[in-house]
Amino acid sequence: MTDMTLPGEALAGTERARRGGRAGKRAGGAAAFEQPAFRQLKIPFAPTKIVSDDELESIHLASLRVLEEIGVDVLHEGARRIMKEHGADVQAGTERVRFDPDMVLELVGHAPSQFTLHARNPAHNVVFGGDNLIISMMASAPNCSDIDRGRRPGNQEDYRSFLKLAQMHNIINITGGYPVEPIDIHPSIRHLECVRDLAVLTDKVFHIYSLGMERNVDGIEIARLARGISREQLLAEPSVFTIINTNSPLKLDIPMMEGIIQMASAGQVVVVTPFTLSGAMAPVTIAGALVQQNAEALSGIAFAQMVRKGAPVAYGGFTSNVDMKSGAPAFGTPEYMKAQLVGGQLARRYALPYRTSNTCAANTVDAQAAYESVFSLWGAIQGGGNMMMHAAGWLEGGLRCSFEKTILDIDLLQMVGEFLTPLDLSEDALAVDAIRDVGPGGHFFGTPHTQNRYKTAFYSPVLSDWRNFESWSEAGSPTAIEKANRVWKERLASYEPPAMDPAIREELDGFVNRRIAEGGAPTDF
Amino acid sequence: MTDMTLPGEALAGTERARRGGRAGKRAGGAAAFEQPAFRQLKIPFAPTKIVSDDELESIHLASLRVLEEIGVDVLHEGARRIMKEHGADVQAGTERVRFDPDMVLELVGHAPSQFTLHARNPAHNVVFGGDNLIISMMASAPNCSDIDRGRRPGNQEDYRSFLKLAQMHNIINITGGYPVEPIDIHPSIRHLECVRDLAVLTDKVFHIYSLGMERNVDGIEIARLARGISREQLLAEPSVFTIINTNSPLKLDIPMMEGIIQMASAGQVVVVTPFTLSGAMAPVTIAGALVQQNAEALSGIAFAQMVRKGAPVAYGGFTSNVDMKSGAPAFGTPEYMKAQLVGGQLARRYALPYRTSNTCAANTVDAQAAYESVFSLWGAIQGGGNMMMHAAGWLEGGLRCSFEKTILDIDLLQMVGEFLTPLDLSEDALAVDAIRDVGPGGHFFGTPHTQNRYKTAFYSPVLSDWRNFESWSEAGSPTAIEKANRVWKERLASYEPPAMDPAIREELDGFVNRRIAEGGAPTDF
Repeated sequence: MTDMTLPGEALAGTERARRGGRAGKRAGGAAAFEQPAFRQLKIPFAPTKIVSDDELESIHLASLRVLEEIGVDVLHEGARRIMKEHGADVQAGTERVRFDPDMVLELVGHAPSQFTLHARNPAHNVVFGGDNLIISMMASAPNCSDIDRGRRPGNQEDYRSFLKLAQMHNIINITGGYPVEPIDIHPSIRHLECVRDLAVLTDKVFHIYSLGMERNVDGIEIARLARGISREQLLAEPSVFTIINTNSPLKLDIPMMEGIIQMASAGQVVVVTPFTLSGAMAPVTIAGALVQQNAEALSGIAFAQMVRKGAPVAYGGFTSNVDMKSGAPAFGTPEYMKAQLVGGQLARRYALPYRTSNTCAANTVDAQAAYESVFSLWGAIQGGGNMMMHAAGWLEGGLRCSFEKTILDIDLLQMVGEFLTPLDLSEDALAVDAIRDVGPGGHFFGTPHTQNRYKTAFYSPVLSDWRNFESWSEAGSPTAIEKANRVWKERLASYEPPAMDPAIREELDGFVNRRIAEGGAPTDF
Repeated sequence: MTDMTLPGEALAGTERARRGGRAGKRAGGAAAFEQPAFRQLKIPFAPTKIVSDDELESIHLASLRVLEEIGVDVLHEGARRIMKEHGADVQAGTERVRFDPDMVLELVGHAPSQFTLHARNPAHNVVFGGDNLIISMMASAPNCSDIDRGRRPGNQEDYRSFLKLAQMHNIINITGGYPVEPIDIHPSIRHLECVRDLAVLTDKVFHIYSLGMERNVDGIEIARLARGISREQLLAEPSVFTIINTNSPLKLDIPMMEGIIQMASAGQVVVVTPFTLSGAMAPVTIAGALVQQNAEALSGIAFAQMVRKGAPVAYGGFTSNVDMKSGAPAFGTPEYMKAQLVGGQLARRYALPYRTSNTCAANTVDAQAAYESVFSLWGAIQGGGNMMMHAAGWLEGGLRCSFEKTILDIDLLQMVGEFLTPLDLSEDALAVDAIRDVGPGGHFFGTPHTQNRYKTAFYSPVLSDWRNFESWSEAGSPTAIEKANRVWKERLASYEPPAMDPAIREELDGFVNRRIAEGGAPTDF
C-alpha cells in the first residue's frame, strides 16, 4: 500500500478553527451565522473491533471462495476482456467471471491507502483514508421535503438550495451526488446542468454519477475546468469521485464498469459500495451479507486496479437489513451498526479508505429519525469510517432529502466533531489551582478560570432547547423539527456564491453550453 | 483487587434468550408482549480510550494533589473520626480533611473489582464490574408525564406504574431509586412505602436513598426480609445499593457519610457519583471537572474501605456541562460523552466497577430527546460502563420521568442489547452455500437459508415505523411519541406481580407496618 498524501495537507483542527469565529465564517463562504470553521476531522481513537482477527479472516476467506468458486456476472464486454487479460477466469459465451484469490489480493494491494481529494478551493481539499474523516451531503433522493411545502419530487430549485446549504456549512466537507434528483431537467442534459451547479455554487469536492461513459467524461472535464488545471495535473490529483453500487448479488452492470474504466483511467476516485441488504439481495445473516459485500467490493476494486495500477479507490460498506415482515429496508439498526464496524475492520485489513453513511428509515424528523441517525453515526465513527456519505438530509430510507433533517444532521455532525476533538489536558485545563481558589462548597461561575474560557468552552448546539420547562412551555412547546425549519430558511437566505475566476467561469460555461447544444448524453440507460 | 463473583453466576446471552419466546416472557413476570428474555449484557469489545495512559495519569495525579493539598469538607463528625483513625489529616475545629495519596490508593485497592448483586428472584441477580452491563430504570424525578395527562408532580400511583414497567421489561435489570418521587406520601414514612413497593411489585435488585441513618437501616432490612435470608448471608451478599452524590465541589455531607457507614458496614453497595457540572460546581474545562470528579469519587470510595475493607463500591461518573448562557445543565452533549469515556478509563485504572447514565435535557420526546439519549448511550457503552442508571424514562435534565420516554428508552436499550450481541460467524452463517444457491442476480427471499432464520434474524423494534411514506401517511403520519403512548398503556395493563412467599410477605408487611406505626424517620434532613 502506498500513501499518496502530500505532507502538511491535512487541515489540523486548531482551537480557533474549532470554535468558529471570523476564519470559520470566511472559509464557509459568507455565512451570516456562528459555526465551527471548516476543518477535516480525525478519529483520535482506535476503531472498535467487534470480531476477532480470526473471525475477520473467516469472512475474508469466505468472500475469496465466493469470487473463486461462484464468481460475478460482468455485463460489460470490454471489462471482461480486461479481466481476462489480467488472469481472471473468463469463458466465451458467458458473463460469469471467476477470480483467483491471489490475483485479487495482488491487485487490491496496488490501491493507495490514503490520498488527497482536491477541491477547486484548496482550503477545502480533504484527505481520504487513514484516521481522516470526510463528511458529505446526502445524495440521490428522488424526493425532498420541508414542513411548509410537504413532500415533493425533486426539482432544480430545491436541488440548488441543498447545494447552497452544503456549501455554507463547514461541517459538510464535500457534496455527494445530487441531494435530490431535479426531474424538471431533461435526463440527457441533467448531468451537465447539475455538475455545473456543483462546480459553481460550491467550491468543495463533488461526486459524478456513473450512468454511461458521456456522463463520466463530462463530469471529469467540468471538475478539471473548475480547478483550472491541465489533464496531466488532474491525472495526478484526484478531484472528483463516483460511487459504484454493485447490483447485488454478484452482478456488475455496464454503466458501473464503464464508470470504473473512465474514472480510474483519469486518476479519479472510485468508491465501490455493494448494496447488500441482508434478507433481500444478500443472505439473511449479517455474516453472510458481509461475505457477499466483501466479495463484491473486492471484485470492483481489483478491476479498478486492472484499469490503472494505483488508481485511488475506496471500500464502501452499506450492509443493512430488511424488515422481514414487509421487505422494507431498515437503517440505523443494531445489525447495520455491526455491519459498519466489521466493514471497517475489513477495509483496514486491505489498508483501503472506508466509506460509510448516516441513514434512517423514518418518515418524519421525529425521535425515530434522530435515534436511527445517531446509531448510524455511532457505527460509522467507531467503525473508523473515512468518508461519510448521506451525512446530512437523509430521510425515509433514502427516498427523501429533508431540509429540516439537513439542519438536524448538521447539528449532530457538529456534535460528533466536538466529540472527536481531543481534550485539552494542559496544566491550566487540569485546573488544580482553579479548584483550590474556589474550594469546598464554592462555585465556579464568575471565577477568572471560567471567565477566560466560557465563551468557547462548550459546543453550542443549533437545535437543542435547554430552556426550563416553564420557559419552553411559554414559548409554545416547540420541537426540534420546528426550530430546524426556521434555521434552514434563515441560513439559506444568507447564501453567497463562492468566488470563481471569470475566465474559468467562461470556459466552464462554454463547455457545458456546447455539450447541452450537442444534446448531452443518451438516455437509454 | 479481588473478584467476588461466584463462578457461573453471570447469565450468558444465548440465542434463545436473546430473541425472546416463552422463557423470556416468564422471566419478565407475565408480560403479554414479545420481548427479549432477561439477560445480563456484556460489552464484547475493548472500551474506547480517548486519552492516552500518560494523559490519564495526569488526571489521576492532579486529583491526588487536590485530595492532599486542598482536601474535602467532611460534615459528619463520626466520619472525620474514622478518617483520622485511618491516617487522614484531620484538624480539630475544622471540617477540612486532607488525604495522603498512598493512603487513598491503598484503601481503594481493597475494593472488589467485580461482585454479584442479589435479587429476591435469583434469576434476576446481576454481576457488577468487569465487562458486564447492568441497566437500571430512571430515578429521582420530582415530576412525571404522559401525553394524555401532561406533566405533574409525582404520586404513588405513577410511582407504582413505573415500577411495574421496570419489572415487566427484561432489558431493565434493576430498579434504581424512585422513578418519580411520590409526594402524596408523607416524607417520614415515604421510604417505607416506597421500598416495600420496590420489594413487592418487582423482584429485581433495588436502590435505597441515603437520607439519614433510619432510611438506610430500614431499606437494608426490607431487602433482607424480601430475600428471606439471615443478616450473616446479607453481609456476604450485596443485595441493595445506594448512590452517594457528593456536594460538589469537595463537600461530603452528613446523610451521605452516614449512608456510606450504614451500607458498607452491612456489606451493601455504595456508588460514589460526584455531580460535577463543568462550569458550575466544577471547572469549566472537562479535564478540570474530571480531576474534581476523580478526587471526590476516590475520597468517598476510600472512606467506604475505611468503614469496611472489601466493601462493594463503584465509581460513578456524571460529569456534564452547563449552558454558559443560562447556567442550565446540559446532557447528552459531546462534552458529556468525552467525560463518560475518560470516567471509564479512570474507573478501570483503579479496577472499580463503573456507573454511567442515559440522560437528556429535552422537554418532550422529540428528536432532541432521542439524539441526546443515544449520544449518552454511545458514551456509556463505548466507555465500558458497568451500571447504567436512569436508563429508561429520563427527560428534562432529570426533572421528569416520562411514560413515553420510558418506552422509547426500552426500545433504544434493546437495540443496544442486540448491538452488543456477538455476530454468529459459523460456517452456516457465513452463507457461502446460500450465496452459491442464489447466484448472481438472484434474490434471498424465500430461500431455505432465509426461511430457516427470518423470524429471529433481526431485532424487531417497538417504535420504529418502517412503513413506506404512503402507508404511513394514510395511517395519519404518526410520530414515535404517539406509538410510545399506546404501547405503555397496553403493556402496563397486562402487569402481574411477581410471586412472593406468603410468609415472607407477612414478615415484610409486619416490619413495614410497625415502622410506619412508629412514625418512620425524622424529616429534618
